[in-house]
Amino acid sequence: MDVRLEPARVRGFRFAGVAAGLRSEPGRKDLGIIVADVPVAAAGVFTTNRVKAAPVVVAQERVGRGRLQAVAVNSGSANCFTGKAGLKLAQDSCAALAAALGCAPALVAPCSTGVIGHPYDLGKYRNGIVDAVSALSPDGLEDFARAIITTDTHPKIASASVRVGGEMVTLAGCAKGAGMIEPKMATMLAFIATDAAVRTPQLKALIRNILPGSFNAITVDGDMSTNDTLLLLASGGAANRPLAGRDLATFERALGEVAAALARELVRDGEGATKLVTIEVRGARRPTDAERVARQIANSPLVKTAFFGCDPNFGRIAMAAGKAGVNLDLDRLEVSLGGIKIASHGALHVGALEAAGVKMKEHEFGLIVDLKMGKAKARVVTCDLSFEYVKINAEYTT
Amino acid sequence: MDVRLEPARVRGFRFAGVAAGLRSEPGRKDLGIIVADVPVAAAGVFTTNRVKAAPVVVAQERVGRGRLQAVAVNSGSANCFTGKAGLKLAQDSCAALAAALGCAPALVAPCSTGVIGHPYDLGKYRNGIVDAVSALSPDGLEDFARAIITTDTHPKIASASVRVGGEMVTLAGCAKGAGMIEPKMATMLAFIATDAAVRTPQLKALIRNILPGSFNAITVDGDMSTNDTLLLLASGGAANRPLAGRDLATFERALGEVAAALARELVRDGEGATKLVTIEVRGARRPTDAERVARQIANSPLVKTAFFGCDPNFGRIAMAAGKAGVNLDLDRLEVSLGGIKIASHGALHVGALEAAGVKMKEHEFGLIVDLKMGKAKARVVTCDLSFEYVKINAEYTT
Repeated sequence: MDVRLEPARVRGFRFAGVAAGLRSEPGRKDLGIIVADVPVAAAGVFTTNRVKAAPVVVAQERVGRGRLQAVAVNSGSANCFTGKAGLKLAQDSCAALAAALGCAPALVAPCSTGVIGHPYDLGKYRNGIVDAVSALSPDGLEDFARAIITTDTHPKIASASVRVGGEMVTLAGCAKGAGMIEPKMATMLAFIATDAAVRTPQLKALIRNILPGSFNAITVDGDMSTNDTLLLLASGGAANRPLAGRDLATFERALGEVAAALARELVRDGEGATKLVTIEVRGARRPTDAERVARQIANSPLVKTAFFGCDPNFGRIAMAAGKAGVNLDLDRLEVSLGGIKIASHGALHVGALEAAGVKMKEHEFGLIVDLKMGKAKARVVTCDLSFEYVKINAEYTT
Repeated sequence: MDVRLEPARVRGFRFAGVAAGLRSEPGRKDLGIIVADVPVAAAGVFTTNRVKAAPVVVAQERVGRGRLQAVAVNSGSANCFTGKAGLKLAQDSCAALAAALGCAPALVAPCSTGVIGHPYDLGKYRNGIVDAVSALSPDGLEDFARAIITTDTHPKIASASVRVGGEMVTLAGCAKGAGMIEPKMATMLAFIATDAAVRTPQLKALIRNILPGSFNAITVDGDMSTNDTLLLLASGGAANRPLAGRDLATFERALGEVAAALARELVRDGEGATKLVTIEVRGARRPTDAERVARQIANSPLVKTAFFGCDPNFGRIAMAAGKAGVNLDLDRLEVSLGGIKIASHGALHVGALEAAGVKMKEHEFGLIVDLKMGKAKARVVTCDLSFEYVKINAEYTT
C-alpha cells in the first residue's frame, strides 16, 4: 500500500470548493463542502484548547451522534470569540447546506478557519453554498482542499487504496494549517473520507488509535488552535465485509499512513519552516516519558533555531531533554543527528560534529535521542524556527 | 527604600573579576570570586533541569550545609556533560580558591557558565584564582559582574539599603543570562550578598519566599538551563538585632525588590528582546491557575512575535490562555494591552485596537488578562520574539 500525495475518488462522496467572498482576496476559494450520498458513519477529534470556536462546539455535538451527511468548511473567519451570535451563525450555515441537500441540519458539521473575533457574512455564505452544491463532483477534493487553506503555501492531499474485507477500498483526505495554530487564521483542519464500510464505534476507535502517530505527533510552534478538527467519514460504498482481525489492522495501517502523510505535509509547510526534523526518543522507561522528552526537544526555541542554523548543538538538546522532568543519566545518553552519533557514554564526539552539521543542511533529517533507561519510544515531527516564522507572525496586524 | 541599578559595598564581603584566559576572547574577564571575611550564612536555589552541570551538583551539596566563605564563578565553559572529570574539575577549582584563602574547600561553592560538553583548563583557572585573590576589593562587585556575563550585552547589578533590627543593612547583587537559558553559554546565575545578620534557616525561608516574584516570574524563551543558580550570602557585618516580625518583613521586601530588579534586567537584556512585557493574570480561581495562564501567554511564540510586531492580537492571547488547561469563560474574559481594554463581555473592542498597537511601540508595557472567575493573581515578565533572537541562536555554531 502506497500513500500518494494526490486526490482520489471515494465512492459515495462528492466535494466542492468555491469563492464565496468570505476572504478579503477577491476570487480566492473560501468555502468547501464534502457531501455524502446518504448519511454515513462519522467520527472526529477536536481541539482540547479551553477556548473553543463556535463551529467546534456545534460539530463536536453532531459528530458525537456518529452520523453525518455533509461537512461545510469556510476560511476567512474562525468564528471564534463571537459569542451566542457565533453559535447561531454556525447553525444557520449548516442549515443552508442542509436545505440545499434536503437533509436534516443535524447531519451537517461546520468548520471555520480565519481571524478570531470576527464573524463572516451569512448572506455571502448562503450564496456560496448554492454555488458549491452545483459544483459538487467526485473529483472535487482538490478544489475543497484549496478552499480551506489560509497561510498554507499549497493544499495538502493524500490518498491510498488497500484490499480489506474482500474489496479494494480507498481513503482520501486533505488538511490545512501552517502551524499547530495558524496565526492570522487559527487552525489545523483535516478530513479523511473512505468508501470502506466501517461502523461508527470502529471508526471512533480507529481515530483514537491513529492519532498519536499522526496529527498528535507534530508540532510547529507548540501553540494550539481554538478550531483544530479532524473528521473521518466512511460511506461503505466499497461494500466490503465487516472489518475485523487482520482486515481491521490493515485498514488501520492505511488510515494511519494517510493521516501521518497529511500531518508531515503540515509540518513541511510550517510557517517559515526550512527543515522537517523527525525526533525519535528511544530507551525511555515509559512511553509517556519518551513523549515528554520528544515534545520538549521539538518545541524548544533554542533547539529549533539550532536546526535552522545547521548547528549540531548537543547542549541544547540535552537541556531540552532535561527539562521534561524525566529521570536522565547523562552517562548513558546517546544522541545522533542525521544518522551521525554526536554523543554517547558521557562524552561529546567532537570529531563528528562537522559531519552532523553537513547532514543538517538537508531539508529533512532525523534526531535520535536514546535515554538507555528502558524500552519505550516516541516520535515527534517538527520544523525549524526561522527568520521567516518571526516575519510571518510579526508582520500581520489585526 | 529604593533599589539602585548600581553596585554597593557590603560589609564583610570582597569581590573580584579577572581575565584568566578561559574564554576565547583574549583579555575578557572570565573568572569572578566573592569572598567573605569569615564563613557566613548561605542559601541557594538551583536548576530543576534533570541535566545538571557538575558545579551545580557540588554547590548544591555545599550550600545545603548552610555556610560558605567564598563563591568562584567562571564563564567560557558550563562544565556540563563532562562526566566524573567535570565533578573533579569543579572540586579542584574550589580547592584552588580555598588554598589561597586558607579555608576549607567545602566552604567554597563553584558556578560555571559557557558551552556544554567542554571542560575548562584547570591550570589557567588556578593562575586566575591567584590574580583574583590579589584583586579582591570591597568595590569589586562590578568586576565580578563583568566576569560572569556571556552573551549579555552588559552586567546586571542592583543594590538597596534598608533599616532593620536597629541598623542600616545593605543588599547588593548581580545576575547574568540573556535568556532563561543562554544558548551558547547556558545559564542564569545570580548572587546577592548582604551585611544583615540573618540565620541560615531564615535565609532559606527568605529565598523561597522571594523567588516566585523575581527569578521564577521571568521568561525569555521557556528554556531552562542546566546551570541555573541563585546564591544568597549574609555576613552579619551590620550587627543588627535578630530579624523578626516587621523587621523580617521589611528585609524580605528589600531582598525581593533587589531580586526582582535583577530578574527584570535579565529579561530586558533577553536575546534579541526589543520589549519588556509584564503579563498579569487576574481573577483566577487559584494562584496556580493564574500562573499557568500567565506562563502559557508569556512563552507562546505567536504571542511573542505579536509583541515584536506591535500587534494587539487578542486571538493569540486567548488561544495561549486556553491551552493552559484552566477553565475559561470567554464571555467574562477581559484583556487590556498598555492600559487599553481590547476585549470584554465576549466582544473584541475593534475601535481600541489601533490605540493599543501604538502603546505596544513602547519599550515596556503591560498585558492584563482578567479571567473574572475568582480572586487569584500571577505576574510573569517576558520579552518579545524578534529576528535577532533567531539570528543570535541560529548563527552560533558549536
